[in-house]
Amino acid sequence: MAPEVNFDFQRRERIGLSEAVFCIGKTPEQIGEAIKLAQAHGVPLLLTRLAPEIFATLPPPAQASLDYDPSSRTAIVGPWRPPAGSPALAVVTAGTSDLPVAREALRTLAFYGVPAREIADVGVAGLWRILKHEEELRRYAAVIVVAGMEGALFSVVGGLVGGVVIAVPTSTGYGAARGGETALHAALASCAPGVVTVNIDNGYGAACAAIRMLGAQTRSEVSASV
Amino acid sequence: MAPEVNFDFQRRERIGLSEAVFCIGKTPEQIGEAIKLAQAHGVPLLLTRLAPEIFATLPPPAQASLDYDPSSRTAIVGPWRPPAGSPALAVVTAGTSDLPVAREALRTLAFYGVPAREIADVGVAGLWRILKHEEELRRYAAVIVVAGMEGALFSVVGGLVGGVVIAVPTSTGYGAARGGETALHAALASCAPGVVTVNIDNGYGAACAAIRMLGAQTRSEVSASV
Amino acid sequence: MAPEVNFDFQRRERIGLSEAVFCIGKTPEQIGEAIKLAQAHGVPLLLTRLAPEIFATLPPPAQASLDYDPSSRTAIVGPWRPPAGSPALAVVTAGTSDLPVAREALRTLAFYGVPAREIADVGVAGLWRILKHEEELRRYAAVIVVAGMEGALFSVVGGLVGGVVIAVPTSTGYGAARGGETALHAALASCAPGVVTVNIDNGYGAACAAIRMLGAQTRSEVSASV
Amino acid sequence: MAPEVNFDFQRRERIGLSEAVFCIGKTPEQIGEAIKLAQAHGVPLLLTRLAPEIFATLPPPAQASLDYDPSSRTAIVGPWRPPAGSPALAVVTAGTSDLPVAREALRTLAFYGVPAREIADVGVAGLWRILKHEEELRRYAAVIVVAGMEGALFSVVGGLVGGVVIAVPTSTGYGAARGGETALHAALASCAPGVVTVNIDNGYGAACAAIRMLGAQTRSEVSASV
Amino acid sequence: MAPEVNFDFQRRERIGLSEAVFCIGKTPEQIGEAIKLAQAHGVPLLLTRLAPEIFATLPPPAQASLDYDPSSRTAIVGPWRPPAGSPALAVVTAGTSDLPVAREALRTLAFYGVPAREIADVGVAGLWRILKHEEELRRYAAVIVVAGMEGALFSVVGGLVGGVVIAVPTSTGYGAARGGETALHAALASCAPGVVTVNIDNGYGAACAAIRMLGAQTRSEVSASV
Amino acid sequence: MAPEVNFDFQRRERIGLSEAVFCIGKTPEQIGEAIKLAQAHGVPLLLTRLAPEIFATLPPPAQASLDYDPSSRTAIVGPWRPPAGSPALAVVTAGTSDLPVAREALRTLAFYGVPAREIADVGVAGLWRILKHEEELRRYAAVIVVAGMEGALFSVVGGLVGGVVIAVPTSTGYGAARGGETALHAALASCAPGVVTVNIDNGYGAACAAIRMLGAQTRSEVSASV
Amino acid sequence: MAPEVNFDFQRRERIGLSEAVFCIGKTPEQIGEAIKLAQAHGVPLLLTRLAPEIFATLPPPAQASLDYDPSSRTAIVGPWRPPAGSPALAVVTAGTSDLPVAREALRTLAFYGVPAREIADVGVAGLWRILKHEEELRRYAAVIVVAGMEGALFSVVGGLVGGVVIAVPTSTGYGAARGGETALHAALASCAPGVVTVNIDNGYGAACAAIRMLGAQTRSEVSASV
Amino acid sequence: MAPEVNFDFQRRERIGLSEAVFCIGKTPEQIGEAIKLAQAHGVPLLLTRLAPEIFATLPPPAQASLDYDPSSRTAIVGPWRPPAGSPALAVVTAGTSDLPVAREALRTLAFYGVPAREIADVGVAGLWRILKHEEELRRYAAVIVVAGMEGALFSVVGGLVGGVVIAVPTSTGYGAARGGETALHAALASCAPGVVTVNIDNGYGAACAAIRMLGAQTRSEVSASV
Repeated sequence: MAPEVNFDFQRRERIGLSEAVFCIGKTPEQIGEAIKLAQAHGVPLLLTRLAPEIFATLPPPAQASLDYDPSSRTAIVGPWRPPAGSPALAVVTAGTSDLPVAREALRTLAFYGVPAREIADVGVAGLWRILKHEEELRRYAAVIVVAGMEGALFSVVGGLVGGVVIAVPTSTGYGAARGGETALHAALASCAPGVVTVNIDNGYGAACAAIRMLGAQTRSEVSASV
Repeated sequence: MAPEVNFDFQRRERIGLSEAVFCIGKTPEQIGEAIKLAQAHGVPLLLTRLAPEIFATLPPPAQASLDYDPSSRTAIVGPWRPPAGSPALAVVTAGTSDLPVAREALRTLAFYGVPAREIADVGVAGLWRILKHEEELRRYAAVIVVAGMEGALFSVVGGLVGGVVIAVPTSTGYGAARGGETALHAALASCAPGVVTVNIDNGYGAACAAIRMLGAQTRSEVSASV
Repeated sequence: MAPEVNFDFQRRERIGLSEAVFCIGKTPEQIGEAIKLAQAHGVPLLLTRLAPEIFATLPPPAQASLDYDPSSRTAIVGPWRPPAGSPALAVVTAGTSDLPVAREALRTLAFYGVPAREIADVGVAGLWRILKHEEELRRYAAVIVVAGMEGALFSVVGGLVGGVVIAVPTSTGYGAARGGETALHAALASCAPGVVTVNIDNGYGAACAAIRMLGAQTRSEVSASV
Repeated sequence: MAPEVNFDFQRRERIGLSEAVFCIGKTPEQIGEAIKLAQAHGVPLLLTRLAPEIFATLPPPAQASLDYDPSSRTAIVGPWRPPAGSPALAVVTAGTSDLPVAREALRTLAFYGVPAREIADVGVAGLWRILKHEEELRRYAAVIVVAGMEGALFSVVGGLVGGVVIAVPTSTGYGAARGGETALHAALASCAPGVVTVNIDNGYGAACAAIRMLGAQTRSEVSASV
Repeated sequence: MAPEVNFDFQRRERIGLSEAVFCIGKTPEQIGEAIKLAQAHGVPLLLTRLAPEIFATLPPPAQASLDYDPSSRTAIVGPWRPPAGSPALAVVTAGTSDLPVAREALRTLAFYGVPAREIADVGVAGLWRILKHEEELRRYAAVIVVAGMEGALFSVVGGLVGGVVIAVPTSTGYGAARGGETALHAALASCAPGVVTVNIDNGYGAACAAIRMLGAQTRSEVSASV
Repeated sequence: MAPEVNFDFQRRERIGLSEAVFCIGKTPEQIGEAIKLAQAHGVPLLLTRLAPEIFATLPPPAQASLDYDPSSRTAIVGPWRPPAGSPALAVVTAGTSDLPVAREALRTLAFYGVPAREIADVGVAGLWRILKHEEELRRYAAVIVVAGMEGALFSVVGGLVGGVVIAVPTSTGYGAARGGETALHAALASCAPGVVTVNIDNGYGAACAAIRMLGAQTRSEVSASV
Repeated sequence: MAPEVNFDFQRRERIGLSEAVFCIGKTPEQIGEAIKLAQAHGVPLLLTRLAPEIFATLPPPAQASLDYDPSSRTAIVGPWRPPAGSPALAVVTAGTSDLPVAREALRTLAFYGVPAREIADVGVAGLWRILKHEEELRRYAAVIVVAGMEGALFSVVGGLVGGVVIAVPTSTGYGAARGGETALHAALASCAPGVVTVNIDNGYGAACAAIRMLGAQTRSEVSASV
Repeated sequence: MAPEVNFDFQRRERIGLSEAVFCIGKTPEQIGEAIKLAQAHGVPLLLTRLAPEIFATLPPPAQASLDYDPSSRTAIVGPWRPPAGSPALAVVTAGTSDLPVAREALRTLAFYGVPAREIADVGVAGLWRILKHEEELRRYAAVIVVAGMEGALFSVVGGLVGGVVIAVPTSTGYGAARGGETALHAALASCAPGVVTVNIDNGYGAACAAIRMLGAQTRSEVSASV
């Protein structure tokens, strides 16, 4: 094992989630090293925040070994295949600019074999857009709500459905949006009871939280795919 | 004129709004002085943030001269009478705890002869509460929305009605509500176009903004009462 | 119905959680009104942040109608009885000073009929204390972790168990603890994947999030008591 | 309709303002998609924050279809023509650096058919500059004041005119100007009664607020152009 | 000398200003000790932030030895007499609530033998109030401007006079006034060139800065009284 | 006069300081316009924050007309010549990285005909460096102290000399230096009495403050050069 | 063992420091419980932040068992006796108001048997005060520097001595002192190399850090007393 | 000596640490000047924050004279050789992204002749990684812990070992990690007693603190190499 990387390979067995590689702040060499390590151990690996311009700097063999998705800025080192079946949860976005974060959540769910539904651009300025999906949303065990700016969508969804509502505040917006802090605080100070939140732009974390929940709920069914 | 108080008596003629006395940070003597000054000039005077415990410290003659309303923490030195007629605008609150701020707005409007409608406790956690009033709200030239915590109500109302929407963020809430800053930022970063805001807990300022707007709109009718 | 209170009685049916009364910023009259309203509708009601000194100001009939618990600063208007059975989740605290917040979570869970386990004072400065409970904690569907100061316990628990980990940052600490913001940020920036968080000192919200999750998980069994 | 964009075409009818495209954070493809969508529906569309370097990345047909104005960083997809007639309100700036924001407000007003007057570089360090326009400003139903740094102009104008005063704090300045936060706080804490504010650099929002006000004021006359 | 107090008696000779006693955070015993020490050395002593309720807790002999002024919350241990002659500078306040801070500056100036002029309640919401004094203010070598809320008065005065302008931001206001930070930032980000500032509510510091300036300017004349 | 620039040419006569051009946020065209305007009026003009890369974008005639100094990022449009004579004040820096800000102050002073002394790199980590200059510094009417990081030099100089001490906090440093805020707060909270401060990195403002002071002190002598 | 308190009795053996009781936020019952627990185990116990008014609420037997020192707000449950011998380190304060924090450090050192020297009120506004002690300070293995306001003393001491310098920022000051944050940031951004810091007002932590260092340095000698 | 650089060459003799060159914000000329100065005096010199892209801009002779290490972004001007012998302390990192900061500490230690042990990527999400090193860590006189995000590792190590624990918070992370502030606050608010901290990303400072401690501990042995 390289002295700079000390993978926690036991994590999947211990908590049901494997260690992912957050690519910002890592050198192409370190990322390549992690890929080789995963391949050597024969385990699938998820890479997040792998922007196209960083992806382009990876060594060609590393690039070739990756199932890369630029819209979510994620890559997967196989063996892996997309989940099928009816969605267990929904990922909802307030605006088009929130999509990269939502897609990070969707890819993470897919990596763990969990099918999910994407509903985009349904912010509260046109309230009919989210209300149109009310009945559908009430059927899911969880809804991941991705919103920036003032984050009003968290409370609106939290007041409509009884399942778990996981807020993902995004850095969409400017000025008083404060790089996502306003949406984050809105999630935390929500008047809807029991809304939980993760870090700004952390689609990955929201998906992991959903995995923890679903794992506990339906440990038997999911275990096959996870 | 006392050297400590230098009233801007020309303000009403100049901008249609007279100088009010913000009572926090003033001594009972200074408040009493202001009341006497208004009486000597024969002009009505509005006092704001006059908490019951401060009111109780005023000299008895000052107390007797005031039309005091503890729920809004305001007092009026006559001549004055409450407005009548159908409401020109609505004051809406997200929760019961936002009422003192809403009442400050309502009393300020009343001081200037503007009748208004109070709609309380219609926060978005139970969305049907505000939607029940949608048609009514669309008929007003302006809606003052009073909300603390995450302030989601600002955007919801801003997306439903075409009149002026004046947000009044309140200090209701704790922790990430940050003493009203989260609601304030939510108003500023709202996804609904054209929502404007005033300072935290500033019901008085919201009413003044509405007066400016109504004065400009219907200068002739209002001028009789204002 | 009083114009100042506009209860969302449909909320329980809609999302499985009923509206609770957050007592800070409300007058004794408004709290008494809410109690009467609940009694008139024959529904149980939870009151939070009801400090002993506020409880003492309530009208005697209101006091008499409440099942009051000073350690959690909560009260319940019946009909209600404590849950029995083996715990579905654990509530863990880093220190003794975090207990009031943990107890708010426990009482909220109890109000909804969910039995839970309290494990107190197991902060990471003495790591053996939490490790002693590792096996037990791994058996729960969820762990609510209540911690102030630097909030290191969130990440440690998040790395040990595969169930849902709900962080409740508390305002315990001083200076750089920043009234709970440091623990809050620690939960959000946790290196353990899938940890979710609620507002500072919000034991109530953490319990509601757990209810949402358990409701989805075991809707049939819980429905009897909830 | 593309799944990534979910236009709220009903907004204009509902609230008198149509959905605009905020171009920061959107890909050239998404912007091009929005343009096509508007053209397909035959409705005019406003694009904001379209910096020249982003404009240059748009597909040539998209570029050709736009009435682009680099000084305001806005573009309009026709059918559209500039308003004529005497100005209904004024847009005032403290300094030359505030012009791009002021121009965004002016273009938005023009998009909705509202003629407005630009008065530039009249900050309070040379007080005679704004006082020279005092009489003119008092004639408008509204004044949009655009200022960065310490934002003193908001209060000065607010104390001179009786019409609506909409502050637009800008990010002009450095250090203690804090990227526009100081001007924003100055607008909120203004000693002039009834000043309202929008987000930092949000010329678009200020114009929308003015449209709301004018729409309410003179619904009949404006409706032809709006 | 008591080990807890280590007076810098050389300071007056070294920099023209003697050490003052800031009374907040000191015990009555420590304050009494400082008074005795000054008396033993036969030097005058200035005490600041001595609120009436703290003054009342001082030992009677200490109280008797003080020339106490509650409006400025200062006390002076003799030998001392108020300055006479025409004022060398002016102390201007935006509002009545800023007076305690202005008075602290005036007392400090008086302690050092510098006569000064007080001009109160001339905030910019009624601009004529400060303009009425324009000619007078232009004659002074320095103007200390005391203002809270948005602090617009700093820039207005800075643009009118050529003498030194020392801003004293005050904690007057609420919400976005942020306890004086907004006025402080306004002074720092002022568009008027060469405005300097001191700490929030620091009337004492502003006076000391003026003493430094006047000492340098007219070292010979002032030295008699200082 | 161009509508985008509205020079306050009366400022020099009114307050002894002329309007300068802050080049950040202005287009090359606007800067060129300002230069032409000054030349047309035959008045000298100071340009600040004119980084070499911006200077290079100016039209060649504009470049040719400027006396440009890259170390201070300032330019002067003549007629102008450097001051001679013994220095009236000193400009002191804590470190080498603070030099650009110090040089901005020195050039501004030179523009107004005030000779000054530069003393660089005398931070308190090697206290002997500033103490070596103690006697010299005590002879000046004013000392401008330029320091970033923790800004300890402000208090040390303020405790050593009796002249005016003008602190210029700089953005030198990282992390807890917070872009200059720590040095700024250190100046404001200084234990040395009468230290005043200007905005972060505002060498220009510090020089203007000194001009105000010297103008008042020695109006007759300085007026020849200013 | 009470379920609310879970003492880490192994800590002393593990890291050389025993668990102390931070009394803020604990009930008198919980404090009394901790005292009994320590007595039952026959181990000495340190209580910090035990203000006189909290001490007075303890049960009389608890009070009687404590060696209470109001100036440091600490109490010790025996067996314990003050250390003798020449001091191993010094505790220095900038001002008189910093003494309670310094005394907390001194008592903690004493509890562990480490003699230390107190040097009070030697802030940099009178630089001679600290320079007078330069030679003495250079002889100690460590200097704990306690300072609020701008915290300049940290850097001055850090530049004079080669031993360990532990900064303790205090909440002394107001306004820009920001409750100790400015001094804290000053310690962190110090230009003197190798200064370390602890939390605001954390005299206890600084002493513990010194114990760690001395324990490592002279493990054998100290172990007898510790 | 160049007037822009005023090296404190006495510092090594005075406090055991020589002045280092922090390269950010300095021109290539100033860095080259510093190198020449050190060579002229025949003293070794450490340069920090010398990113590869800045290194590439140095004059070739300067480049050639440097022992440059890109992973730590440091360079050393000889005479110098790496230390040998068993490590006196350990440098531990939570993640791979923290390595550049850890390496800055290691190179600084090496510059002063102190051998140290690197243990990388042992964050608490996989607690077994740090526990595996518990026994080894307990043997060192000091442990430098380098961690970003939530900084939980500081408290965990602080609760395991009795030696000095120096926290180095890093800017690793995003959103609520707040550029290192959360890890910084976590170090300051740690529940483990006696943890000290330095500035964000300040590996250099942590090493200097360790040198101060080791110098005091084993002055005789170390002095040969230092």
